[in-house]
Amino acid sequence: MPQLRKDPVTKRWVIINFEKSLGAADYKIPRASHTAVTCPFCPGRESMTPLELMSYREPNTLPNQPGWKVRVIPNRYPALQIEGELDRTGIGLYDMMNGIGAHEVVIESPEHNLGPADFTPEHWALIVGIYADRYRDLKRDQRFRYILIFKNNGIAAGASLEHPHSQLIATPIIPKRVMEEIEGARQYYYYKERCVFCDIIRQELSSGDRIITENESFVAYAPFASRFPFETCIAPKEHKASFGALEDSEMESLANIISATLKKLVNALGDPPFNYIIHTSPCDGNCDEYYHWHLEIMPRLTKVAGFEWGSGFYVNPTPPELAAKQLIQSISQPKKVVK
Amino acid sequence: MPQLRKDPVTKRWVIINFEKSLGAADYKIPRASHTAVTCPFCPGRESMTPLELMSYREPNTLPNQPGWKVRVIPNRYPALQIEGELDRTGIGLYDMMNGIGAHEVVIESPEHNLGPADFTPEHWALIVGIYADRYRDLKRDQRFRYILIFKNNGIAAGASLEHPHSQLIATPIIPKRVMEEIEGARQYYYYKERCVFCDIIRQELSSGDRIITENESFVAYAPFASRFPFETCIAPKEHKASFGALEDSEMESLANIISATLKKLVNALGDPPFNYIIHTSPCDGNCDEYYHWHLEIMPRLTKVAGFEWGSGFYVNPTPPELAAKQLIQSISQPKKVVK
Repeated sequence: MPQLRKDPVTKRWVIINFEKSLGAADYKIPRASHTAVTCPFCPGRESMTPLELMSYREPNTLPNQPGWKVRVIPNRYPALQIEGELDRTGIGLYDMMNGIGAHEVVIESPEHNLGPADFTPEHWALIVGIYADRYRDLKRDQRFRYILIFKNNGIAAGASLEHPHSQLIATPIIPKRVMEEIEGARQYYYYKERCVFCDIIRQELSSGDRIITENESFVAYAPFASRFPFETCIAPKEHKASFGALEDSEMESLANIISATLKKLVNALGDPPFNYIIHTSPCDGNCDEYYHWHLEIMPRLTKVAGFEWGSGFYVNPTPPELAAKQLIQSISQPKKVVK
Repeated sequence: MPQLRKDPVTKRWVIINFEKSLGAADYKIPRASHTAVTCPFCPGRESMTPLELMSYREPNTLPNQPGWKVRVIPNRYPALQIEGELDRTGIGLYDMMNGIGAHEVVIESPEHNLGPADFTPEHWALIVGIYADRYRDLKRDQRFRYILIFKNNGIAAGASLEHPHSQLIATPIIPKRVMEEIEGARQYYYYKERCVFCDIIRQELSSGDRIITENESFVAYAPFASRFPFETCIAPKEHKASFGALEDSEMESLANIISATLKKLVNALGDPPFNYIIHTSPCDGNCDEYYHWHLEIMPRLTKVAGFEWGSGFYVNPTPPELAAKQLIQSISQPKKVVK
């Protein structure tokens, strides 16, 4: 069972893996990755993964057989475990908790070699749709307080398998980084009686300096205080606290803007490693008045070093206004040929 | 002039570089590094760097000439600029500030090819001594609220030059990450009337499970809630809030424990990339009752990915008890030959 441990000073929680612990020797050996020849996420190798939790598939095809377009499986090496009870204990001044949670993998496409910018908007609608389905299902489990959806694209962004995939993790505590956003949004709301994200979006749309693209329901912009070069935020124009509240009528708009934004990033930067993360309100819905869900895209072009770790403030060599301008002007490259 | 910008939700500050901005094309070209043949930090090339602020050197040698043992220069590409006034302004709901501060480089040795584990304890005493001298000098500038001392070792840890060096950055605001520690320590102090760090050190020394090494004045331990494999904290055993209050009598103890700890890390892990950071109390001394300075060493063995960025909690595959045990048992490797 993994263990959740809390830092007594910063109150930051850490998951310690006791079952598949790595010792010093493990860090000297480069980790193996899979090519299409051995990849457990490719069609025809469904038996190499845990049984699927859900898939969108061709008519008349069976679960755990080829024919799927998007497929969700439990993570074989979960950061948190689904079985068991939450159990909080202390050792002296330290706090800890059983590592209960869920950890799922969304295999985004049967095609091993497609990058996220290669997916059609129609295919993005399937990915976003299955995110929402899994989100709503996990939310019913009373042990979970938060559901995090994210993608690591490229080795430098922490991906361990090259086949396109993203992940869902349900946690028994609200993560610190989310709490900070909630607390900031709450303070603003009590002072202004308005959602801070709604105000940001209004100001961005009105100035236009950092807008990358927009459509009927969503806007993509470079945040004013971007930590990373070409950092991008995609948010619903109307106030919506939870990703789980995504309506069918908005699905197409969201798929279109993700597709358009990732294409621009790839056009401008080649094939950059990146992470994206859906920031949504916690499961309890207590802050739905002032929280506003959004998708953060963080290209990993610079190294986070001692100064950032030590201070929590970031040095960004690319002003977000320049990033937005270059993304708008980026020209589509000849599409890569997938064999 | 760099610009400090504040995120309106999380209140995180970011430094945006407008003078040497990087556009999309700059991220496609790998950055050049220097070998010993062209290195501006090597003796004999002092004229390639800005004029030195301080050095410890052989008797009868001149500033900005060879003969130095440790040398401090202004950073040629500073994250923050020394000249100018603090000037806080807003644009709509956004806050920003002139990027005023200091950014210095400590060249730790004339030897290009020495790693930090190769330095003798006597040489570490020079490095630590010059840190303390620069710290006290910068602290006199009323514009600065915090002084951060850190080292990036190895490309993967963000070092852009291989010659051994560390950095000091003085900032006009107290960094967020430091504020979090201060706030946590303050809450504990008001509740218990004791320093949380003193209590942690007492508990660690008493259990012994995570102690790596100790001497008269300092202890090195693997934190209970370590974020990273082989993360290590070095702290004074007695309550001391500010690194600037380091006494001459403690210098040798500190140099010895840094040297011993880094040797153990190198013995156990080869030549791992790492960052270290001195966490000290802010310049104003307001929280000296409950803050306790310490040095954090973070080997960079795993990639920080979407989950960590999105949640602020970390998955650590190496339990700190295992890390401490392996560091204690690590055996010295034959010393590398430096030409």
